[in-house]
Amino acid sequence: MSYQANHLCLIAENVKLGEDVRIRGFVNLYGCTIGNGVRLGTFVEIQKGAIIGNNCKIQSHTFICEGVTLEDEVFVGHGVTFTNDRFPRATNEEGLPKNDNEWTCETTLVKRGASIGSGVTLLCGITIGERAIIGAGSVVTKDVPPGAIVAGNPARLIRTQTKGVNAGSIS
Amino acid sequence: MSYQANHLCLIAENVKLGEDVRIRGFVNLYGCTIGNGVRLGTFVEIQKGAIIGNNCKIQSHTFICEGVTLEDEVFVGHGVTFTNDRFPRATNEEGLPKNDNEWTCETTLVKRGASIGSGVTLLCGITIGERAIIGAGSVVTKDVPPGAIVAGNPARLIRTQTKGVNAGSIS
Amino acid sequence: MSYQANHLCLIAENVKLGEDVRIRGFVNLYGCTIGNGVRLGTFVEIQKGAIIGNNCKIQSHTFICEGVTLEDEVFVGHGVTFTNDRFPRATNEEGLPKNDNEWTCETTLVKRGASIGSGVTLLCGITIGERAIIGAGSVVTKDVPPGAIVAGNPARLIRTQTKGVNAGSIS
Repeated sequence: MSYQANHLCLIAENVKLGEDVRIRGFVNLYGCTIGNGVRLGTFVEIQKGAIIGNNCKIQSHTFICEGVTLEDEVFVGHGVTFTNDRFPRATNEEGLPKNDNEWTCETTLVKRGASIGSGVTLLCGITIGERAIIGAGSVVTKDVPPGAIVAGNPARLIRTQTKGVNAGSIS
Repeated sequence: MSYQANHLCLIAENVKLGEDVRIRGFVNLYGCTIGNGVRLGTFVEIQKGAIIGNNCKIQSHTFICEGVTLEDEVFVGHGVTFTNDRFPRATNEEGLPKNDNEWTCETTLVKRGASIGSGVTLLCGITIGERAIIGAGSVVTKDVPPGAIVAGNPARLIRTQTKGVNAGSIS
Repeated sequence: MSYQANHLCLIAENVKLGEDVRIRGFVNLYGCTIGNGVRLGTFVEIQKGAIIGNNCKIQSHTFICEGVTLEDEVFVGHGVTFTNDRFPRATNEEGLPKNDNEWTCETTLVKRGASIGSGVTLLCGITIGERAIIGAGSVVTKDVPPGAIVAGNPARLIRTQTKGVNAGSIS
């Protein structure tokens, strides 16, 4: 295991870090798995149970929660927020703070090579298809097909990339 | 007063912290009042004059400004941004940086048990009703009635919770 | 050069800081130019090559990337995200992490006295006109004329300020 981290990070001992991971300052990681060649920007938090594939790039101010899996080569822009609780409440029916058994963690899967633009919010329980592109500032409320380009609130299909899901460019 | 804070926080001496407050890393608090049993996520800032009720949960990357009051049991998701200045400008008519007397702080009230989804932006001068739910990624531009579920930019009524504003679930 | 910084900042030696700059905690600056009288909020990152004019105010949780120029007296709210890459990908066609020569940085210009509301995302390659106002939570996809007030996703013209682009108020 080797990695390069700037100052002022909180990286818990239970984090599984791959080779050649680059981490900017003010990063908070705990209980997550980070693949080889991953680059993490400033002010990023990744929670326990999240899995980040090889060669992903995660930009500043982004939050990746429990229940999220990024396959390899995924781009996540700045200020992106994942979610995992469809009906969040601070307290249970007795008015006491909810504990870990009083909510359901829903999963989100981002397939290989997808790009999630900056400022995007993703609802939970969805799959983002291979090499799909989510436009900046979108709110994603449902599955995104492979190779699709979506944008808006809620995000809607703009077009599908014509070179196919394995192409290197999106013309 | 007792609280548990991780490393790398800036908590000013003028913060009023209740009992059993849990604070994650990289939190910036000054001049605010935090109730009992409150949980604060990573990269949260709460400004002077803000009031956080008992058993509220405030998630990572969220900003709560002067003029905001959360009643008890409020949930605030990740990356939520409150505002308090309807016409912000960097400078006054002379082109000099505005001072504290050159703008009007507008208030926002979030009533008991409301839930504000992740990635939400709230305009100022509004009230979020008891147990209302703001969908993730919404932009809230006006009052939200008690028990309402709203979403979108601008946020619009999706439906009203049928079990009433005091119910524990939202079916 | 003089400035006042709170604790827990990362300010690289290659940052050009003007006179009387005020910097809150948890700020990450590198390779950028910051004018006189600028105020920077908590959790702000400003990248190399970005230029911030005199007397600008940049609020918490905001990201300003390479390629962005703010003229004098610009207001940038909380949680604002600029962008500079129209087609971001984590990796090149060989599946290897992109290097600095494998993407095109697009520029964004914010003219004198403009105000960008909190929670705004800006696509790249655009110009925000003098004293324009971007409503909170907007997604800006194209140029904004001088004196215009725009809002929404995508941001659309709400009205034009009647006192002209040099007026101190927006009535």
